[in-house]
Amino acid sequence: MKAVVYHGPHDLRYEEVPDPQIRHSQDIIVRVTAAAICGTDLHILHGTLPGMKPGTILGHEFVGVVEQLGPDVTSLQEGDRVLVPTTIACGWCFFCRRGDFSQCDNATPSKTPGWFGGPEQAGAYPGGQAELVRVPFANTGPLVIPDALADEEAVMLTDVFPAGFMAAELAGIRPGDVVVVFGCGPVGLCAQKSARLLGATRVIAVDGIEERLDLARQENQAETIDFRKTDPVQAIRERTGGLGAESCIDAVGAEAVNREGKHQPIQALLWAVEAVRKAGTIAVVGSYGQEAAHFPLVQAFSKNVTWRQGVCNHRTYIPRLIAYVLSGQVDPAFLLTHVLPLDDVLVGYDLFNRRDQGCIKAVLQTAPEELG
Amino acid sequence: MKAVVYHGPHDLRYEEVPDPQIRHSQDIIVRVTAAAICGTDLHILHGTLPGMKPGTILGHEFVGVVEQLGPDVTSLQEGDRVLVPTTIACGWCFFCRRGDFSQCDNATPSKTPGWFGGPEQAGAYPGGQAELVRVPFANTGPLVIPDALADEEAVMLTDVFPAGFMAAELAGIRPGDVVVVFGCGPVGLCAQKSARLLGATRVIAVDGIEERLDLARQENQAETIDFRKTDPVQAIRERTGGLGAESCIDAVGAEAVNREGKHQPIQALLWAVEAVRKAGTIAVVGSYGQEAAHFPLVQAFSKNVTWRQGVCNHRTYIPRLIAYVLSGQVDPAFLLTHVLPLDDVLVGYDLFNRRDQGCIKAVLQTAPEELG
Amino acid sequence: MKAVVYHGPHDLRYEEVPDPQIRHSQDIIVRVTAAAICGTDLHILHGTLPGMKPGTILGHEFVGVVEQLGPDVTSLQEGDRVLVPTTIACGWCFFCRRGDFSQCDNATPSKTPGWFGGPEQAGAYPGGQAELVRVPFANTGPLVIPDALADEEAVMLTDVFPAGFMAAELAGIRPGDVVVVFGCGPVGLCAQKSARLLGATRVIAVDGIEERLDLARQENQAETIDFRKTDPVQAIRERTGGLGAESCIDAVGAEAVNREGKHQPIQALLWAVEAVRKAGTIAVVGSYGQEAAHFPLVQAFSKNVTWRQGVCNHRTYIPRLIAYVLSGQVDPAFLLTHVLPLDDVLVGYDLFNRRDQGCIKAVLQTAPEELG
Amino acid sequence: MKAVVYHGPHDLRYEEVPDPQIRHSQDIIVRVTAAAICGTDLHILHGTLPGMKPGTILGHEFVGVVEQLGPDVTSLQEGDRVLVPTTIACGWCFFCRRGDFSQCDNATPSKTPGWFGGPEQAGAYPGGQAELVRVPFANTGPLVIPDALADEEAVMLTDVFPAGFMAAELAGIRPGDVVVVFGCGPVGLCAQKSARLLGATRVIAVDGIEERLDLARQENQAETIDFRKTDPVQAIRERTGGLGAESCIDAVGAEAVNREGKHQPIQALLWAVEAVRKAGTIAVVGSYGQEAAHFPLVQAFSKNVTWRQGVCNHRTYIPRLIAYVLSGQVDPAFLLTHVLPLDDVLVGYDLFNRRDQGCIKAVLQTAPEELG
Repeated sequence: MKAVVYHGPHDLRYEEVPDPQIRHSQDIIVRVTAAAICGTDLHILHGTLPGMKPGTILGHEFVGVVEQLGPDVTSLQEGDRVLVPTTIACGWCFFCRRGDFSQCDNATPSKTPGWFGGPEQAGAYPGGQAELVRVPFANTGPLVIPDALADEEAVMLTDVFPAGFMAAELAGIRPGDVVVVFGCGPVGLCAQKSARLLGATRVIAVDGIEERLDLARQENQAETIDFRKTDPVQAIRERTGGLGAESCIDAVGAEAVNREGKHQPIQALLWAVEAVRKAGTIAVVGSYGQEAAHFPLVQAFSKNVTWRQGVCNHRTYIPRLIAYVLSGQVDPAFLLTHVLPLDDVLVGYDLFNRRDQGCIKAVLQTAPEELG
Repeated sequence: MKAVVYHGPHDLRYEEVPDPQIRHSQDIIVRVTAAAICGTDLHILHGTLPGMKPGTILGHEFVGVVEQLGPDVTSLQEGDRVLVPTTIACGWCFFCRRGDFSQCDNATPSKTPGWFGGPEQAGAYPGGQAELVRVPFANTGPLVIPDALADEEAVMLTDVFPAGFMAAELAGIRPGDVVVVFGCGPVGLCAQKSARLLGATRVIAVDGIEERLDLARQENQAETIDFRKTDPVQAIRERTGGLGAESCIDAVGAEAVNREGKHQPIQALLWAVEAVRKAGTIAVVGSYGQEAAHFPLVQAFSKNVTWRQGVCNHRTYIPRLIAYVLSGQVDPAFLLTHVLPLDDVLVGYDLFNRRDQGCIKAVLQTAPEELG
Repeated sequence: MKAVVYHGPHDLRYEEVPDPQIRHSQDIIVRVTAAAICGTDLHILHGTLPGMKPGTILGHEFVGVVEQLGPDVTSLQEGDRVLVPTTIACGWCFFCRRGDFSQCDNATPSKTPGWFGGPEQAGAYPGGQAELVRVPFANTGPLVIPDALADEEAVMLTDVFPAGFMAAELAGIRPGDVVVVFGCGPVGLCAQKSARLLGATRVIAVDGIEERLDLARQENQAETIDFRKTDPVQAIRERTGGLGAESCIDAVGAEAVNREGKHQPIQALLWAVEAVRKAGTIAVVGSYGQEAAHFPLVQAFSKNVTWRQGVCNHRTYIPRLIAYVLSGQVDPAFLLTHVLPLDDVLVGYDLFNRRDQGCIKAVLQTAPEELG
Repeated sequence: MKAVVYHGPHDLRYEEVPDPQIRHSQDIIVRVTAAAICGTDLHILHGTLPGMKPGTILGHEFVGVVEQLGPDVTSLQEGDRVLVPTTIACGWCFFCRRGDFSQCDNATPSKTPGWFGGPEQAGAYPGGQAELVRVPFANTGPLVIPDALADEEAVMLTDVFPAGFMAAELAGIRPGDVVVVFGCGPVGLCAQKSARLLGATRVIAVDGIEERLDLARQENQAETIDFRKTDPVQAIRERTGGLGAESCIDAVGAEAVNREGKHQPIQALLWAVEAVRKAGTIAVVGSYGQEAAHFPLVQAFSKNVTWRQGVCNHRTYIPRLIAYVLSGQVDPAFLLTHVLPLDDVLVGYDLFNRRDQGCIKAVLQTAPEELG
């Protein structure tokens, strides 16, 4: 089969590799029908995600059709169209039993979160930017896609939308709250939409790129702040009668820049601590590549801040998001700016990397006739 | 009247000062019957609490009898025996209406938490290590003490016990959980007891002073770890089958030392991030005097840690603690090692400071005949 | 002044009465600018609400302008445009302190809920279908109306919308749930809209009047069941794959009829017990005029049903609803079919009573020039 | 093997029956080491539990040793000492996935709760008052018993203690609450103890049998009311300053009698509606054999009562109770008044039935040498 293979920084190749095989009794083989490129894939491309092994097939956002079943798979059938959550969960360990699927103890040898197309510490599972992919623990993770959902909609629910939804849920939003979302990338835009679903009556979006702020206004009815032009902390305080926002979401993570455009990995978190209301909540879904060299503990303490965060618990949130999409309240394809054939995957990486042609999210599809 | 007055680091004096007067319509004047010395008072003594103004009367833990009422005080009567919460709350601002009393917007000009006998930023309210004290916003704060509670029991409920109880409540304990408490000082010991009240079936107490660990074992049936002898993180993991503890409480704060005995302000927090179970909760009630020069954001993120903290919301927790004491489940006097007459307050400071004669908590009492 | 006065069943008169006076230090006098007629007013008209005293001024849904202030009113000023919640709450009793405002102990001598324009057991407070009205405990109840809200929008938030919102909140809705609302009267329609705000992705509305079901479809995107044509229990089961609905709301109450059109006061509740999912929740906001002569305890028990209910806690929900309206997510005027001058109030009663001209909700307004 | 077989009302026989066999791939065969007699077994004895089939082996409270494993049982091993929850749960249906194990859709054909030794509608599973028993869905239900727990302690955790604990959890207790428990039978006594574990600082126990009230006082530090001598509603109001209790638990169910000693199936529920505080919660764990011919809907509504109930979710609560027992906070054997050899089971039924020799709970044990 053909797949996107990582050979080193700035060296991705779309090439012929061996077909995956069933290795464990709960594995399935999925024929991929649509796969997306995520911001994390760009970190891999740039060599800024530690632990990547050359030879790894990339891609953790994908849907497809079940082609082969391991002998102990009871919850799926051949031919099922399935949505595969990015994180891998066994379903029976201490953490899965508690519903903390993204913290499964059996996904990686180090008991850290495991996901497709990632580095060694994430299990180095071969990813889904490929014609075929092996999906482990298939009784727990994959969900059958309702007929009313198109592939390109479903693929948005594998990672980016649940991550945004989790941000909003961690943020502890009560009906009538003001919520600030730092970052208007794909996850930030989903967090803004989710904040509204969970009861925020005002969403304030902060970013430094005007087209993204436009999207936040158009798609999520957000009020916006361009941090290059306006001090976001001061602006948030002014717009909330001096109180600050009940919840602040950091959907930026490691790539943050400060007001002068200089890289400052926890800039959004620092702004959040200042802009959050006393007794408010900060939720972090943008991951930081490095430990903090500074943290405003005194301020967070004296304001009684709650701080929640972490790797998205995809398996918990995806069913709820499917229900929202079926109800017509959410259109997950609003992020989708480009659809290309899988063969053009490297073009897609290039578009997404350069944010060319307004690329927010690119999906790679295999032609229906290939599915036989 | 006589009162303990701060004149500078290591310069406290018990001296004659003018009697307090009603200044606002909701003020009351309380004749103090019992007051305690708190760890924070030692910070003031040592000059390590910034913002202290010479001339400030100390003491934020006190109970007494209502001697005079402002014209708008409707919830109390002259002669009522009252327990006065350490933090000051107006009762009607945005935060008080939400029940976040310790974040009252009207307690200080800077809208930060206000308390008795503290620094300028806390409002510099004259404290209760005195014969008389003015209590503002008296319709909201002071609680009438049930007859069954002695003064020296009630004074334990003004600050130290609610602070420990809040730690346990912030820790999100579910019935059957394992809870680690770093610190076996007065607040830590109360947090351990409260953890049990809220459903912890195992409490692991960590400290470096053997007598304090003894108290944790005797009073709270805690399992203990002396961090000078044993690596606490490794020990907690071993005792929890590798999982770590569902909740970790930092009741140490700024005074923490590392295993070599060197001052490391966030040592307990660092251990907590390592020892807490994936998807677990860290609660912090020990305040840090300074911002962190390092913070393990990556680890906290990758474990999906919830982190809660802050200035004790006394007004919320004290009524519950009174109910526990009346039920016989809690004896707040278990911390009380020394009772002295108010005139001997400087002796009490000395005992407490040197942790002499096993001093955990010293209470200063005025003789009943003084109350006339 | 002029006011709508109850003289007995089917004998309402719009007549001259004495102006109200300040009686307690926290009273205010409000000049009414808009008042609505509620289904409960029709019960009064028909003589089916026990305890009504002849001479009572009717009306518990009204907004207006503060004309006079008692000496202890600190939270309002003369000239403020205010929205007055239907239920009366002192703000400082045991229940108000806990936020259970509709269960205030000081609103009525019998400690039962008190409201404007109602029977003796509700305090027999003179109501707001009048030019002027006395509002007690004015530091707690009335809310200043933001400029962006018109009077006729605000009046919808005094009772009917909060009642529907409370139904949805009591129903324990989680994102992605299916919610059934029995009843498409004003409260039922608001409950349907609120269910969606709180995360229901499917709302099934049940009624026996086709125009009301039309409104449920148009305004709330509800799926509908006409119980005259279709067995609602069977239909709900079929549409939920046999599971039933996570939450069922009874917004009908005493007026319920069965499938044959015969009066059966708890018919909606009986259907709810059958249609609710195992481990689901039933919320009741339609009050029953009489005790039940039958109740399916065995079925409710064996399905582990939670059942929540009661008099609307208006003061808690109104601020959230104001935030929703300001955000543009909710248009409270969607119920409003008729606006008349206050002088035509008896015409309004007649329209509403006969459900003539599609009357869902009628608002009575005084002309702006009258406010002088 | 030998087992207790139901042949009709008042006709139980301890007789030879065929050994059970593995029938499904997740079955196990357990050699019973201890079994208890429950109040429900007396209903069966008296013929008051509908649907019992002659030939059914009785007993839903039992522990034992795994003797044989079906091929798909992965979570247990031969020789494991196991505690078997009374209700049966598959582990993968809609309800089990949500944690509502007692509402499992696969336990019975009618999708109603399934349990051992019960009637046709509960699945008619052969029970555990026998030498051997087949346990279905063994990956989900049975829990390995820690060494520190004796058999006779563990058997108390199979049904009666979790039922009492669930009552307390459904009651929505907050720290400092007053909780009333109607009924001082085994479940009521466990509910009282659990109420305390969950934060009740006052427990008021109501019964009509003096020895049971004695136990409530001795074991649970409860205040008590003998309803034969004192009107319980009036007494509860008096003891709570007129407010009533935040939570009321009905642990009586169908067998209730009124103050005159006349059978009145929902008497405890009626008292609970009157004695519960406004905005309080009623929890019901005593099941009613019949629908109610009367229900005080108006009173429950006008007080904003929450009402929760149902079949015990054993699988959820047992692990927490094991943790409490291991911690020393709970001694589950406090109920245990009689231990007999299994061969004397009919003597045990007789003792329990006549409440002879103070029999609260009788356990039947097989001799260790029988386990070979």
